[in-house]
Amino acid sequence: MEIITPILTPFKNNGDIDKEALKTHVNNLITKGIDLIFLNGSTGLGPALSKDEKLSTLKTIYDITGKIIFQVGGLNINDVIELLKASKEFDIVGVASYSPFYFPRIPEKMLIKYFKTIEEYSPHPIYIYNYPLATGYDISAKTLEKFMDSKFVGIKDTNQDLSHSLEYKSLKNFKVYNGSDSLIYYSLLSLDGSVTAASNYLPEIVVKMKNLIQNGKLNEALELQKLIISILEISRKYGQLSSNYILVREFQGYNVGIPRGPIFPLEDEDVKALIQEINPLKDKIRKFSS
Amino acid sequence: MEIITPILTPFKNNGDIDKEALKTHVNNLITKGIDLIFLNGSTGLGPALSKDEKLSTLKTIYDITGKIIFQVGGLNINDVIELLKASKEFDIVGVASYSPFYFPRIPEKMLIKYFKTIEEYSPHPIYIYNYPLATGYDISAKTLEKFMDSKFVGIKDTNQDLSHSLEYKSLKNFKVYNGSDSLIYYSLLSLDGSVTAASNYLPEIVVKMKNLIQNGKLNEALELQKLIISILEISRKYGQLSSNYILVREFQGYNVGIPRGPIFPLEDEDVKALIQEINPLKDKIRKFSS
Amino acid sequence: MEIITPILTPFKNNGDIDKEALKTHVNNLITKGIDLIFLNGSTGLGPALSKDEKLSTLKTIYDITGKIIFQVGGLNINDVIELLKASKEFDIVGVASYSPFYFPRIPEKMLIKYFKTIEEYSPHPIYIYNYPLATGYDISAKTLEKFMDSKFVGIKDTNQDLSHSLEYKSLKNFKVYNGSDSLIYYSLLSLDGSVTAASNYLPEIVVKMKNLIQNGKLNEALELQKLIISILEISRKYGQLSSNYILVREFQGYNVGIPRGPIFPLEDEDVKALIQEINPLKDKIRKFSS
Amino acid sequence: MEIITPILTPFKNNGDIDKEALKTHVNNLITKGIDLIFLNGSTGLGPALSKDEKLSTLKTIYDITGKIIFQVGGLNINDVIELLKASKEFDIVGVASYSPFYFPRIPEKMLIKYFKTIEEYSPHPIYIYNYPLATGYDISAKTLEKFMDSKFVGIKDTNQDLSHSLEYKSLKNFKVYNGSDSLIYYSLLSLDGSVTAASNYLPEIVVKMKNLIQNGKLNEALELQKLIISILEISRKYGQLSSNYILVREFQGYNVGIPRGPIFPLEDEDVKALIQEINPLKDKIRKFSS
Repeated sequence: MEIITPILTPFKNNGDIDKEALKTHVNNLITKGIDLIFLNGSTGLGPALSKDEKLSTLKTIYDITGKIIFQVGGLNINDVIELLKASKEFDIVGVASYSPFYFPRIPEKMLIKYFKTIEEYSPHPIYIYNYPLATGYDISAKTLEKFMDSKFVGIKDTNQDLSHSLEYKSLKNFKVYNGSDSLIYYSLLSLDGSVTAASNYLPEIVVKMKNLIQNGKLNEALELQKLIISILEISRKYGQLSSNYILVREFQGYNVGIPRGPIFPLEDEDVKALIQEINPLKDKIRKFSS
Repeated sequence: MEIITPILTPFKNNGDIDKEALKTHVNNLITKGIDLIFLNGSTGLGPALSKDEKLSTLKTIYDITGKIIFQVGGLNINDVIELLKASKEFDIVGVASYSPFYFPRIPEKMLIKYFKTIEEYSPHPIYIYNYPLATGYDISAKTLEKFMDSKFVGIKDTNQDLSHSLEYKSLKNFKVYNGSDSLIYYSLLSLDGSVTAASNYLPEIVVKMKNLIQNGKLNEALELQKLIISILEISRKYGQLSSNYILVREFQGYNVGIPRGPIFPLEDEDVKALIQEINPLKDKIRKFSS
Repeated sequence: MEIITPILTPFKNNGDIDKEALKTHVNNLITKGIDLIFLNGSTGLGPALSKDEKLSTLKTIYDITGKIIFQVGGLNINDVIELLKASKEFDIVGVASYSPFYFPRIPEKMLIKYFKTIEEYSPHPIYIYNYPLATGYDISAKTLEKFMDSKFVGIKDTNQDLSHSLEYKSLKNFKVYNGSDSLIYYSLLSLDGSVTAASNYLPEIVVKMKNLIQNGKLNEALELQKLIISILEISRKYGQLSSNYILVREFQGYNVGIPRGPIFPLEDEDVKALIQEINPLKDKIRKFSS
Repeated sequence: MEIITPILTPFKNNGDIDKEALKTHVNNLITKGIDLIFLNGSTGLGPALSKDEKLSTLKTIYDITGKIIFQVGGLNINDVIELLKASKEFDIVGVASYSPFYFPRIPEKMLIKYFKTIEEYSPHPIYIYNYPLATGYDISAKTLEKFMDSKFVGIKDTNQDLSHSLEYKSLKNFKVYNGSDSLIYYSLLSLDGSVTAASNYLPEIVVKMKNLIQNGKLNEALELQKLIISILEISRKYGQLSSNYILVREFQGYNVGIPRGPIFPLEDEDVKALIQEINPLKDKIRKFSS
């Protein structure tokens, strides 16, 4: 049972990646017990990163931990192939890719060709990243069966329907992680773990949820899930992706830079309002974390 | 009443843009009576082009025609700003941008900030490119009213609901174009024209539809629309975006290169099948074009 | 080119159908030039009427006009069959039925069996009533081709996508009417007419739109469409179905009773607010109607 | 933790309710350990039953068990009120209602008025039945907070998103049941039980799942959930609602009549195919049930 953090990408004011902040952040997460880092995911603004930026995040954190799933997906297959080739030098857990996005009605044949190309060039095991709400495409268990082989070792299914994730468990030797912050509890109780953005700002809580479940203390674990849901309800109002940066600072005590437009940093008044709404939960969090 | 072609982007086998093919194509379209070129749109695989590639398409066709709307949108606001600045040297009709895409639940506030940033830096009039099916966001007339001013001069609304497009006509001095190939007829009869991907491969037919409507020959124009719909029904089965390249060659007689993965070129058997299905329509098209 | 009114059903305070009000209303519509009456449709709260009520509306207006399409659809096939049998005594234009609704994932096979049963028992020509947004099912041209024969003579397609309606025109001897109030103009310009709820309260305007189009005065017709859209935007805020009753009284000057819960009558304050918003449009309407 | 069966309604060939078959079925379910019967739900074809039929199902099973939640919802508020009044004579657990359905865009105000009317007339505690996929309306926790009081005691949330169901748990003294067959396991692990149509044909399996969970044997319980999902995958192909009748006969060994068109009985060849696909699972089921 693994807790995987789809790590956010810290930017500087000029839009460059803030590598020092990224290191600090990864160091903290690993110390707090996070099992794996999912790099260049949606929380990390992956689709907004250039090919070079995607590679530079890998280089930045590789020395801290090899526990990395390296997301390489994109809309230029040549860039994807170059990233796969470049990944050869790194001893990582695997590469990952979301499906093509933006373009409606890409035939299934081409989606499969995309993943088969990744398979051809990847020096590492491959994780599928399925996020239909963002990409418009669902790489369901049925679709996956049409092309998968032993190189495909797992999936991050960002999906509010757990039975959708559960269906992948019929595939042999295949790790399945649901990717929704509001379903961590359920994902831990039926799949191989959870890829949770909330573990960026509350790694202690998510790690504790895992421990509680491993010790059969389900009710307590469920309370932690409810706590995370109440934070999500608040932060979504301001924009989840941008709020994450503030929440890390508030809950973990260090700076992780800012996001990059069009995922703009929260305006000052929104930062204040967000903190004000979050403050009443801090005691609860402290209690739960201890 | 304008016919605008969201021009496809020809690639070489190695994935580079085929500039000569692009020139040939634009030359032909302008000769055939197309009014404006929409550059780096969805048909042009805009979201799959790098910043440099987006600028290079502009440089490539600028000498042929200044009748260009230059789409600059993207998920890195710094890149967008650079493209806007670079556009200063070119005497074009306007710039355009789709909304941010991929990331679900971006607050409206940030969508507006995105377009206001474009406004701040654009040396040209601005066209909104609204394509909710692809981006997940609808920049409706009501949203637009919240931030638009005189620099925003028009919209390409790719939307199957014409009453949605029609609502923008309540905005003053604002040009509205529906962007669906299956609604060209309706768009010409109520809006300022049409942005139609089909005009890449059948410019004569679309220009003729415009002329028929201007001369009050609605039934004949409607027949042309039905013809285009039957081509769409065929080509969608193989993947619309990739089929476009074959259809230009088949109907216009010259090569426009290939698309780039993950919008892969059609496989040989699909090319054959597509042509076989299209062939019976060629007589009809010849008759109509004359 | 026909204007068809999906007539609203007037109720008394006790929930019974107000037959006198229904007669008055139909009389007025026929006088104003409406071509056909669509009975027990969605605007008429058809799915909320019992079998007996559905038959009683037919009996009530039959003497005034035989120009009736009698909607008989429902979730009890025995009731549907009884209504079909009872319709034998009436010299009407046809019967109609929406697809089954509420139940998700009914196989296409059963949808077809439903319409084939109607065909078996109907003494009249049959119109399909396609309203996917309400029923959850789309009886598209492709589905229809699987079972239709000469007894199926037309369709009311309540759909914001006109190209969806247009596809039915490939079927032989088949009348196609779009059923959206915001697309009347487009429907008249490409199909066999329009089934428009707005013709309940503004029959003069819709009939005039038809006349303008028949005389090639498209711009004026389009203005009338825009006028109707502005009324829709207002009335939707209060609930379209309930607002219709107020709008008939306001624009036509007689009482058509009230709707029946859960389509509750508007509360007094909402009636006032609706009228206040509508009032500024009355001059425009008067001008247009004359 | 309760297992609630949304009981199917057996019909005779002539379309009448088969009361004897209904009694047999309820008897068996209660014997097998089902906690409550949800009457006239979607599985019971509730929206296809007349007012009199809805009451007759209550009368039929009341003597067998008072453990009944009596669903009374419908599109005629007078009928709903009559059913509520008639329920006074019965000592049942509560009444329930889905929201109005079919009609798109009913204002929230009217949805609330609908449920407040039920509250006014109900002699029993009230359960909300939320099924957005069928009705088009979501009575979310946020909506519910606007009108609920102590008479509203619970909800059946038929929804694939468990975090949606979980949000109702923030309401005080409010029982929450997810209503999806593919999420029973998760519902039992976080809510007050499950309303599961599959318990019509496999009550032993569902009751055993509950027992396993109560004894902390989660992995075994999860296997039962997967078993049910594989049955769902098969039966959905033939039409879930109609398949239920065959599955009861196959797994429980007695006849529960047939459904009623437009939820037509499966055709013979589909019955055969369904049984053939289900047969390989029977050994597994027998093993699990023992």
